[in-house]
Amino acid sequence: MPTDPRDAMRAWFLGPRAENAELLERLVVESLRDHVFWRRNYHPEDGFAIREMDKRQQGYEETVATLTQELMGLLAELKRDVPFFSGRYKGHMIGEQTIASQIGYFATMLYNPNNIAIEISPVTTRLELEVAGQLARMIGYDPSRSWGHLTSGGTIANFEALWLARGVRYLAVAAAGAAGELGLDLPVRLPGGTTAPIAELALWELLNVTNQDTLDLWERLWQSAPRPEVQRALTNHSLAAIGYQEYSRRLALDYGDPLPAGVALVAATAHYSWEKIVRALGIGSNQLVHLPLDQFYRMDPDALWERVSALARRRQPILALVSVCGTTEESAVDRLDQVLQVRARAERELGATFHVHSDACYGGYAAAVTRRADGTRRTAAEIRESVGTDWPSEDWVRAVEALSQADSVTVDPHKMGYVPYAAGAILVRDGRTRHLVATDPPYLSPAEGPAPDTERFLGRYILEGSKPGAAAAAVWLSHKVIPLDERGYGYLIERTVAGAHRFHSALAGADLAPFRAVMLPVPDINIVCYLLCHPSLTTLRAVNEFNERVYARMSLTRSDGRPEYIITRTRLRSPAYDGAIDPILAALAVGSVDEWKASGPEGLVVLRSTIMDPFLAAPPPAPDHVRGFLGALRRACTEVLGAGGAAAGLLS
Amino acid sequence: MPTDPRDAMRAWFLGPRAENAELLERLVVESLRDHVFWRRNYHPEDGFAIREMDKRQQGYEETVATLTQELMGLLAELKRDVPFFSGRYKGHMIGEQTIASQIGYFATMLYNPNNIAIEISPVTTRLELEVAGQLARMIGYDPSRSWGHLTSGGTIANFEALWLARGVRYLAVAAAGAAGELGLDLPVRLPGGTTAPIAELALWELLNVTNQDTLDLWERLWQSAPRPEVQRALTNHSLAAIGYQEYSRRLALDYGDPLPAGVALVAATAHYSWEKIVRALGIGSNQLVHLPLDQFYRMDPDALWERVSALARRRQPILALVSVCGTTEESAVDRLDQVLQVRARAERELGATFHVHSDACYGGYAAAVTRRADGTRRTAAEIRESVGTDWPSEDWVRAVEALSQADSVTVDPHKMGYVPYAAGAILVRDGRTRHLVATDPPYLSPAEGPAPDTERFLGRYILEGSKPGAAAAAVWLSHKVIPLDERGYGYLIERTVAGAHRFHSALAGADLAPFRAVMLPVPDINIVCYLLCHPSLTTLRAVNEFNERVYARMSLTRSDGRPEYIITRTRLRSPAYDGAIDPILAALAVGSVDEWKASGPEGLVVLRSTIMDPFLAAPPPAPDHVRGFLGALRRACTEVLGAGGAAAGLLS
Repeated sequence: MPTDPRDAMRAWFLGPRAENAELLERLVVESLRDHVFWRRNYHPEDGFAIREMDKRQQGYEETVATLTQELMGLLAELKRDVPFFSGRYKGHMIGEQTIASQIGYFATMLYNPNNIAIEISPVTTRLELEVAGQLARMIGYDPSRSWGHLTSGGTIANFEALWLARGVRYLAVAAAGAAGELGLDLPVRLPGGTTAPIAELALWELLNVTNQDTLDLWERLWQSAPRPEVQRALTNHSLAAIGYQEYSRRLALDYGDPLPAGVALVAATAHYSWEKIVRALGIGSNQLVHLPLDQFYRMDPDALWERVSALARRRQPILALVSVCGTTEESAVDRLDQVLQVRARAERELGATFHVHSDACYGGYAAAVTRRADGTRRTAAEIRESVGTDWPSEDWVRAVEALSQADSVTVDPHKMGYVPYAAGAILVRDGRTRHLVATDPPYLSPAEGPAPDTERFLGRYILEGSKPGAAAAAVWLSHKVIPLDERGYGYLIERTVAGAHRFHSALAGADLAPFRAVMLPVPDINIVCYLLCHPSLTTLRAVNEFNERVYARMSLTRSDGRPEYIITRTRLRSPAYDGAIDPILAALAVGSVDEWKASGPEGLVVLRSTIMDPFLAAPPPAPDHVRGFLGALRRACTEVLGAGGAAAGLLS
Repeated sequence: MPTDPRDAMRAWFLGPRAENAELLERLVVESLRDHVFWRRNYHPEDGFAIREMDKRQQGYEETVATLTQELMGLLAELKRDVPFFSGRYKGHMIGEQTIASQIGYFATMLYNPNNIAIEISPVTTRLELEVAGQLARMIGYDPSRSWGHLTSGGTIANFEALWLARGVRYLAVAAAGAAGELGLDLPVRLPGGTTAPIAELALWELLNVTNQDTLDLWERLWQSAPRPEVQRALTNHSLAAIGYQEYSRRLALDYGDPLPAGVALVAATAHYSWEKIVRALGIGSNQLVHLPLDQFYRMDPDALWERVSALARRRQPILALVSVCGTTEESAVDRLDQVLQVRARAERELGATFHVHSDACYGGYAAAVTRRADGTRRTAAEIRESVGTDWPSEDWVRAVEALSQADSVTVDPHKMGYVPYAAGAILVRDGRTRHLVATDPPYLSPAEGPAPDTERFLGRYILEGSKPGAAAAAVWLSHKVIPLDERGYGYLIERTVAGAHRFHSALAGADLAPFRAVMLPVPDINIVCYLLCHPSLTTLRAVNEFNERVYARMSLTRSDGRPEYIITRTRLRSPAYDGAIDPILAALAVGSVDEWKASGPEGLVVLRSTIMDPFLAAPPPAPDHVRGFLGALRRACTEVLGAGGAAAGLLS
């Protein structure tokens, strides 16, 4: 009989009351002693550098005293930290860590492997590549063709995605230059389906070869001349070598075309780190084009089509389109299937194409919901039956299945993978892409070029260098215990969605009179957004102030540091939320869209609860934290409006 | 009586034979239980989500079984990992971790704080900024004016350094555009010492304002008009917003100057990651100018002056100069004091300036050697007396003291800070620099612009986003137990230098007949390089092959996986090592410089031993691993030349 995930889940975490403390302690002590005896058994004939008599010296004892004292101080201070383990925590995205990841991290940290190279991490580099293969399989990539690795987090993963996308987008231009230099004529497939000799292509055409055709072209180039010559010729024409300043000048010279700056299209809800990324890459934040949302906070595919057509008309290349699977503010899941249809149409009708990236840092693990134990896909109806709600829709499943067609996907194990920081991941559909950013360290021998035995020298292909093998082991062990399907992570995330739905409907239906909760739509995954109002609050500013103060009472910034429940908040601003604001303001019945737009950075304060607690929808005798939350929210509202001075300020 | 560091050091590490196992286990268990009881004591009135009866369910028990089994499998596999703890490990830079860092990481990981923002890491963000202050003080920065933070490692830290440097270098150009737009006239100080109105400056002059004068100018600009207007005007002209493509065009238009591409100057020994960095930033690897070395593997200041003059003559801006404090191959310490003199001369004589960065990722902690307990500097003679060798020279001390004058310094706690991965750090001398790369997340309220309370929102100023507070706590606790001066890290590094010197002179003086060791110079810190030869090896190729095979027998790649001692190797290639190769080839008496140059990537194989073991120079009864190593090396040499087939191959 297969393991029942309802029972299994109770062994996945330390637990809100540390119910599994004995288990974790047993494994921690076992791992530590196991490491200790490794040391003892390694050449036991060697003597001792630290002797028992040394431990009787005053300096030794003083050091132990300092260490113990300072540690006790640190432990005391850490009690001011966020009680993410409790059902009372309904704030920013942070949840429990799995016991497997905690013990995997700790045990491996004692060995401190460095996953920059397999030479110094023979075990954990392999685990890292295994983890990447597991995630690839979960989202529907072919693990034998795709490639991926762990990063320190989502920002670096997304950075690499755009870095790789840029490499592919400009590759055909470099290949054309190289082919010219080497006197080669290579056929290139264009998005419309026709094939033309590379020398005959205009700059715009070279910039609009699909990723797959670009990489095929690149492989043909390597096969058409001796390797060192191809290497030299490609380098002579690659943006990575030439740099933007010289590159722009060259293109203007070679093609008589000043080449409008390449843009990156992102959903208006895209994480703010995309701005860092385009700035750092030298693309410039002006080239970060934000696309409108629909009222479910998803990228609007019609608006995307219009923007793509407009860009194609003025021959402005698109480096990449960033779609989101699980926005960090609302957990919205873009209709990636429709986004991909827009690209297919652009290829057919406009001869234009672009790299499609899905930023699934937050939501990526939700793809586990769509997997049966044998790896096949579950239907939406099957999932709905399992969750016990009307989630997910057929559209949701289509959107998540479409991850398999994205050119790259980023997914953070340290978010819905429930592992400790720092663990992000990037996956690319066509593993050949990694060679475009490869850099060789000096100790690689000449024979060790792009050959199989260097494939596990991760430092060649990634932005970071030295990196903890412990993070890879943590994710790996967690995936071993909690599989990436309906038995494991799929079930876990179903439970958080069930909790989020329960939370949403309870709050929507609650009698909070004289207060009233205005709900944002039922979330695509598990972040619930809402705001509170009161008849006396008649301006947007007053509503914002009120909600900001409710937040202040329900967060650790509260003056006594002891909120009953903990939530967080964000601000919906124009123009990002133009497509979504109407129904909210209508429900709020305060302020107008024009007023909201005019408020600029002030925007609309919205309260947020990320439901990562898998026990929120658990039946009694589990504690009922939905009911508890409603009571606490009501008390917070009353306290804010009750305090005379504050109310006067709000109502003005 | 102050604590004697000789005794204290024996409590700093778990130890080669896990001599301090009891201490570590006590602290681990204490930290875990302390966390467990935090959970139990947080609203004890809440019920239980996991009940004792749940633990009797089959699914629960199966999960515990899977977890335990897979963990045992992982622990077994980890035994193939690098035995870095042993005195027999003399390979790549990896050493013990301090007990303080191990326990600090583990204890804090249970709380899993995210140092992206103080809201979700109230304790560890503060610890991170404290650690940055400690490191700043160690290298001689004024902690009240400087700024710094931890990164996932040296590559990201160096990336940020060049990103910040670019921001400063192009800032005066943006300020000139903004001032023009706002109708302001601002005085600017030029490197020669004169002052001129900003509108009158040529592009070349704007690109050659010192960092301090640039930031002063920027502050004056903010004071000269309302903030939103300055913000808008600066954005209109900043590279970060405009991107390289449009920026180049604009400058050509505004200044009639096509602006040659900005370059980054690096020592020929600079880490290969600098190539990744300039590629990713859009600067291009062609703009990465490698400067010649002297025969101690340090940047040649005369060659630097020549290059700077040549660049100034053709009006090519220098974004940054990267000097190295502790090369990863040889632990060479650049004469940073002389580098800074070159810049001062360039400012005086050429009107040219640039950002000076010190990549002290490996060697930065060696600055602790120069500090007394009260924070004042030790003289070279004092240090020599303490180490008991003729190290360091007065020049070495001057070079290390010069870190205080670098514009930015990167230093990796996870290298000579002896803490687990991942912990790098960047420090900038003028903390105002951080505002040039700031990005605001949506939940920051409008009032929370660049104000004191957002200073601890690290995510605004750094490339990464979510990041482990546990890493900060690990470094912090380690610094508490092992201070950054002669009592702590200074003493620790002195002992490794003493060990490296002992190792170097023993190997140089050893009778290995018929083999002979050719030594590279005595290292600036603690990496010893050498190669072996034999009268029958008469070509460079044969010598390389021989050393490569000795390495293969003395590394974990050895077929039985059980090398007696473990070393690593690198390759000295032309042109990087042109300035250093002569004495080595002369001592080797095989091959010529021309032959070596012609060999391209083949180069010269050099064996390397990083001495991070502080007990290598310890007197008996500590094990004598220098003697043990010499025996093992001799056996490896004999085995390689003894095997008939192999020898035939080598001697051909």
